[in-house]
Amino acid sequence: MPDLTTNRVPSQLSAIASPEDIRDLSTNDLRALADDIRRVIINTVATTGGHLAPSLGVVELTLALHKVFNTPQDRLIWDVGHQSYAHKLLTGRKERFATLRQYHGLSGFPKPGESAYDAFVTGHSSTSISAALGMSMASSLQGRENRAIAVIGDGALTGGMAFEALNQAGDLDARLIVIVNDNEMSISPNVGAFSSFLSRKLSGRTMRRVKRHMEEKLSELSTLGENIRNLLKKSEDSVRCFFTPGMLFQALKFDYIGPIPGHDLDTLISTLETVRDTPQGPVVVHVLTKKGKGYQPAEEKPGLFHGIGPFDVKSGLPEKKPTPPSYTKVFGDTISEMAQTDGRIVAITAAMTQGTGLEQFAEEFPKRFFDVGIAEQHAVTFAAGLASEGMRPVVALYSTFLQRAIDQVIHDVCLQKLPVTFAIDRAGVVGDDGPTHHGVFDLALLRAVPDLIIMAPKDENELRHMLFTAVNANQPVAVRYPRGAGENQPLDRSLKQLEIGKGELLQKGDDLLLLPIGNRVYPALAAARELERLGTSVAVINPRFVKPLDAELICHWAGHTGRVITIEDGCGMGGFGSAVLEMLSARQLWHVKTRVLAYPDHFIEHGPQKILWSASGIDSQAIITEALSFCQSCQKLAN
Amino acid sequence: MPDLTTNRVPSQLSAIASPEDIRDLSTNDLRALADDIRRVIINTVATTGGHLAPSLGVVELTLALHKVFNTPQDRLIWDVGHQSYAHKLLTGRKERFATLRQYHGLSGFPKPGESAYDAFVTGHSSTSISAALGMSMASSLQGRENRAIAVIGDGALTGGMAFEALNQAGDLDARLIVIVNDNEMSISPNVGAFSSFLSRKLSGRTMRRVKRHMEEKLSELSTLGENIRNLLKKSEDSVRCFFTPGMLFQALKFDYIGPIPGHDLDTLISTLETVRDTPQGPVVVHVLTKKGKGYQPAEEKPGLFHGIGPFDVKSGLPEKKPTPPSYTKVFGDTISEMAQTDGRIVAITAAMTQGTGLEQFAEEFPKRFFDVGIAEQHAVTFAAGLASEGMRPVVALYSTFLQRAIDQVIHDVCLQKLPVTFAIDRAGVVGDDGPTHHGVFDLALLRAVPDLIIMAPKDENELRHMLFTAVNANQPVAVRYPRGAGENQPLDRSLKQLEIGKGELLQKGDDLLLLPIGNRVYPALAAARELERLGTSVAVINPRFVKPLDAELICHWAGHTGRVITIEDGCGMGGFGSAVLEMLSARQLWHVKTRVLAYPDHFIEHGPQKILWSASGIDSQAIITEALSFCQSCQKLAN
Repeated sequence: MPDLTTNRVPSQLSAIASPEDIRDLSTNDLRALADDIRRVIINTVATTGGHLAPSLGVVELTLALHKVFNTPQDRLIWDVGHQSYAHKLLTGRKERFATLRQYHGLSGFPKPGESAYDAFVTGHSSTSISAALGMSMASSLQGRENRAIAVIGDGALTGGMAFEALNQAGDLDARLIVIVNDNEMSISPNVGAFSSFLSRKLSGRTMRRVKRHMEEKLSELSTLGENIRNLLKKSEDSVRCFFTPGMLFQALKFDYIGPIPGHDLDTLISTLETVRDTPQGPVVVHVLTKKGKGYQPAEEKPGLFHGIGPFDVKSGLPEKKPTPPSYTKVFGDTISEMAQTDGRIVAITAAMTQGTGLEQFAEEFPKRFFDVGIAEQHAVTFAAGLASEGMRPVVALYSTFLQRAIDQVIHDVCLQKLPVTFAIDRAGVVGDDGPTHHGVFDLALLRAVPDLIIMAPKDENELRHMLFTAVNANQPVAVRYPRGAGENQPLDRSLKQLEIGKGELLQKGDDLLLLPIGNRVYPALAAARELERLGTSVAVINPRFVKPLDAELICHWAGHTGRVITIEDGCGMGGFGSAVLEMLSARQLWHVKTRVLAYPDHFIEHGPQKILWSASGIDSQAIITEALSFCQSCQKLAN
Repeated sequence: MPDLTTNRVPSQLSAIASPEDIRDLSTNDLRALADDIRRVIINTVATTGGHLAPSLGVVELTLALHKVFNTPQDRLIWDVGHQSYAHKLLTGRKERFATLRQYHGLSGFPKPGESAYDAFVTGHSSTSISAALGMSMASSLQGRENRAIAVIGDGALTGGMAFEALNQAGDLDARLIVIVNDNEMSISPNVGAFSSFLSRKLSGRTMRRVKRHMEEKLSELSTLGENIRNLLKKSEDSVRCFFTPGMLFQALKFDYIGPIPGHDLDTLISTLETVRDTPQGPVVVHVLTKKGKGYQPAEEKPGLFHGIGPFDVKSGLPEKKPTPPSYTKVFGDTISEMAQTDGRIVAITAAMTQGTGLEQFAEEFPKRFFDVGIAEQHAVTFAAGLASEGMRPVVALYSTFLQRAIDQVIHDVCLQKLPVTFAIDRAGVVGDDGPTHHGVFDLALLRAVPDLIIMAPKDENELRHMLFTAVNANQPVAVRYPRGAGENQPLDRSLKQLEIGKGELLQKGDDLLLLPIGNRVYPALAAARELERLGTSVAVINPRFVKPLDAELICHWAGHTGRVITIEDGCGMGGFGSAVLEMLSARQLWHVKTRVLAYPDHFIEHGPQKILWSASGIDSQAIITEALSFCQSCQKLAN
């Protein structure tokens, strides 16, 4: 446990410019260095916020990997890269570490643009084995001798693509090292049969079944069967060793080493040296770590300290900001409220119970709550199965992770027009997590899907009605809402069904129609006030529905004003603005002049949402500027 | 083997109106019925084309399932539903069976709209366990006693979402029956470690490793260890039994029964009865079947007869149609040609070597060819890993299956701007396979992704140059091309690099600009000729690039004519036409009148491509009609 009270410059760390500098250090020195690293990580994240617990859990593992392997020639890929803070500190970024997750500062995830030691971008889960296998095959084809090392958590192993990669890797006999970082807990407590398999907690039921099976098989085999059967009867432990945890990997043709203690530098180093020096095919090294290791509050509440905002180091208490309730919380409350009276409602999350606001639902309705693990594809098709039997599943996912299940939305839900509600949290830019996590593509991706209704609420009160409308719509519905605080609006006590495809006229006007969607409605209203003051008469519509659009209302005011500006917290290519352009074209409203305000066609960096909205020209100040220039252009053309 | 020469009415089948009618039949009667069913399937598919070999392989299994279980109350879900022909014949569709895959006829896949016995749409692979688990949980929540049964092939088990579903199912202790239909071959020969695991073909290397591991563990255990070690040394078979094929499923907390012979009705029925009558959690029944069973040509060439066009029943030879070479073949030839001189090129397929035209490449460059199994997510990220090391991977996928990997395209390839080429075959409507397989969403989905170049060739010759351009573009590129024959154009001998973002002006004109993309170019040219004859002066541009658009060229001619019609073999929501609308809006070409010809916002049914193009208003006749009405509307507005 590092001494957190002192402010002295970390003496060990200051001498480390790159992993080269640790390769000759003694274990004692490395231990002191680990203390330094933990101190810097804790103190920095206390200020910047970030993924604390995962990074604290792998400090020794990071040191051992960089000591033993020849990085960056050997490629090191951190699955769900939020475990990479120690790695960043060791690879030439300690001076900039205070800028972690700040605008124009260090990314919270590996980023090849930042360092040659970051072999691959990893923000989404379960990708590392695929990427490492690709690198390994490239080395082999190019006649190079370097290694590819994937470090993957036990939680990330529940993602199907990790299994797909293991399956191919075993067959290719690749030079591939997979470090399973087993902290017995990913973001939420791990779920799924595989988890207990890995974590050596086979149920009594499974034990009995295994024993029975093995007894039968063995007794068929040989005269020695009787002895073995007796052995097996003696102790359940004798079965346990057959089964876990290496056997699955061995069945997939990996060599398996472990489990080894993940905070014991001597064991880590000697094991990794053996792995390095043995000519080999694919190998799994199973390492046991403790999430939050070295910081007691994080060890005790690894869930809370998984990803956390600024906190007080001494007390371990998060800084409280008196903000309006978040969309996430309103979603969670509303779903629970609806489930009280509607027994058809079930809720599904992919390892994000807390993040999606479903904790209360999970407590109140344990039988109607399903955490499927990091498995978005399955989550969606599982929901489709439930819906086909008359249930009303609500699948709560972050926008960026829904990208994993687009095919399932199309093929398994919408093609059958099944009443699944997609509650899409973290839509739009998410802020500090950056481009791997921004939810800016959902409208463009989902808009293409037939028979899907798409809504976006202007505030948290409207979210409530939209959820009610969605669950009762008898067809697939997506409701997308942003990260963070709502608009501090009072919440209607009773829930009402919105008319599908009907928007609301917020303000009449003659010169210009503002068409903002979702969280852009209030900024547009603010802009409209200022534009009115400057002499422009502005109509504002809250379309509510991205699909189906309220063609009647929008076309009326577009026709009336002759000028439309659409505004969205999403990508411009194929998004809400495009929907409006398509409609105007289809309805032959060719005289209407249009401008689309949305994200430009590149990936948006990390930084506070407000800065990103402003920099991308979709906050109220930008709307004012754009509106004035747009009206000027229209005028010019008319003259 | 049924007698195929006779034309007599299948006497057994004619008496079967629904599965009710088979529940009291004797095994002998069922055998005769199986013969009847095979005869009808073979004779029908010989005329209509279809998925012959998979359906022939499960005739007995289908009979046994419907005899033993109480369908449709018990839900039966056929993974990749092309195994469902016998199921269709037994469930009230035998009279319409001759309309299989015909326009307005029976679908080639399960379709709840067709029959209450079709519990779930399944066209894509590996979805059945998720759906069945959802149904099972719904039953349990609703207090119903019915069962959910997923029938899944060994090939489909390589898809990650099947693993995700198994993982959750074991944990939920659900009333779920998974029938593993193991024909040791999916569409292509199976790949991956899991496959050999299942099919009882552990390699010597694995064997040795397993033995060593077990010896070590056992010897630690007890004094009996020595005996066991001796036992293990005696025979590799003794290890084999521990390991395969049930243990993986048992590890995932499923009960396991099998393997059982899949064409032996007695064993099938008694096994399924046991499963039905045992109170239970999730269970796997492992059934061994032979693909193409009962039709010798299909048994011998199950790959050829997986999905086949019309063929001669007697000879087993496909009807030869003298068509121009397909896009698929030109793709395969070109990639092989390029790989001769460019050692960076590797090719990746997801269990579709033949379908994507990569057979020749696989033969010529076995070390540079990767079939990853039905695992599109992994395929894309594996390619990203290869590309990050300087290789130039070409990922060949059908458009509809690329939907499985949208997140990987965004997060793993484009966010890092890695030079991966996506060769997207079967883009646009695919014809007889219908809505589960139409590739109409790719342009809308991919257009949202930054840093991705998107091309579509007007003919097979342009495809060649586009592939060359893609591989040499040093960034992610998608090339999408349709199913079926090319335009019979001569192929340039040498490959040339197209200028990125440059289209070609095919024809000048003053009244109207036609902007067709990909396979719509030739129909548009034909339409233009007729329109010229009728007195309209038509400009035609082949944009080549959906992204980046050739803004200069298009805006010039759009501005000149003032009228643009876009035409695409893809969905209208967010597709190519939208891209043009966005560009015209952004460039303030507000005076240009526009019409977008594309698929309307619903799922397109199955039927011949030509009929679908015509019915959806994107063939040359429709372009003529639309152009005339469009020009008339423009005129009216001008007056």
